Amino acid sequence: MRQHQETLEIKTNGPGLVEFTEAVVRVVEEAGVLTGLVHVFCRHTSASLLIQENADPDVQLDLAAFFRRLVPDGDPLFLHQSEGPDDMAAHVKSALTQTTLAIPVADGRMALGTWQGIYLFEHRRRPHTRQVVIHVLGA
Amino acid sequence: MRQHQETLEIKTNGPGLVEFTEAVVRVVEEAGVLTGLVHVFCRHTSASLLIQENADPDVQLDLAAFFRRLVPDGDPLFLHQSEGPDDMAAHVKSALTQTTLAIPVADGRMALGTWQGIYLFEHRRRPHTRQVVIHVLGA
Amino acid sequence: MRQHQETLEIKTNGPGLVEFTEAVVRVVEEAGVLTGLVHVFCRHTSASLLIQENADPDVQLDLAAFFRRLVPDGDPLFLHQSEGPDDMAAHVKSALTQTTLAIPVADGRMALGTWQGIYLFEHRRRPHTRQVVIHVLGA
Repeated sequence: MRQHQETLEIKTNGPGLVEFTEAVVRVVEEAGVLTGLVHVFCRHTSASLLIQENADPDVQLDLAAFFRRLVPDGDPLFLHQSEGPDDMAAHVKSALTQTTLAIPVADGRMALGTWQGIYLFEHRRRPHTRQVVIHVLGA
Repeated sequence: MRQHQETLEIKTNGPGLVEFTEAVVRVVEEAGVLTGLVHVFCRHTSASLLIQENADPDVQLDLAAFFRRLVPDGDPLFLHQSEGPDDMAAHVKSALTQTTLAIPVADGRMALGTWQGIYLFEHRRRPHTRQVVIHVLGA
Repeated sequence: MRQHQETLEIKTNGPGLVEFTEAVVRVVEEAGVLTGLVHVFCRHTSASLLIQENADPDVQLDLAAFFRRLVPDGDPLFLHQSEGPDDMAAHVKSALTQTTLAIPVADGRMALGTWQGIYLFEHRRRPHTRQVVIHVLGA
């Protein structure tokens, strides 16, 4: 059993999904593991992770639009407003999606479905550089 | 440390939860692991995974009903309508639930709580055959 | 590769988030692993897990308030009412958040972001003692 750990930096430019499947593919190749698991961990609470369809880009726009409507910025319900109207909404959107993912590796490749891509979901308005830890485990 | 990987096929018949706990139990037994982890991975973006109560079947109906109300088919918000009114709603429901799960194994058995079952959550109207990868790791 | 498994008991006192990051830190230290993964598993379907901001306590209050409004107790939609008005709402809130988490370990410490804490999210009104399985894997 082998382990390989790497931190990726992902630049975001406002709310929405940023695909980084190819960067994870490269980490898996470097790890040289044939059978195993890749774990993906987002080190933030105002951005999150999703595995979603990567065929039609409208899917990513619709996902962002749905979460924007479900969790409106500056909702008067929120006490936590000091970091801007989009901050607490960002925490809620993170809670509703994922912070950690695990994808099986088979024959040296992630066992993603045909249309699955790995996305960082940015919830803040301003550009950010986000850190995602990739941990590969296997043999 | 041992690894064992298997892909299950789960038939669905319209929206709702399909329990497959027993199939995972069998994979864990085949793996012959006493202490470890079972990872469950759904290879789709219009079906997802949940660990939920398996005592009262009404719980599964209520879960499906809640998500149907929260994310209505054919919502005019959605741009992505080409694959039918239930397709984009299915992606959103997948984003709101899980694509990957990990369950500890202790004394050769999954450490599920008394009422916990493992479910595939189908979000499309038509019947599908869904693939779920089970990866057992341990000693 | 080493494995270490422990079950934590977390006391809750009505709906809301209870941080238990320090308890997980202690389990990781006991495991004596430098590089690896910590898996956290909630053995319940009416309480769940979240990684969230641990700086401003208002964030935890706002998260609980948002989920209370999104999934109201005693929603007439629900068939499953026999265990009290907060029971089915609790299952839905669990489905919308997480039952399993995995956090990388680097240099003997969890690679959490600066503001990330690990929380149990209690969804029932009455006090409970909740079981969370911690599984550390690594070398």
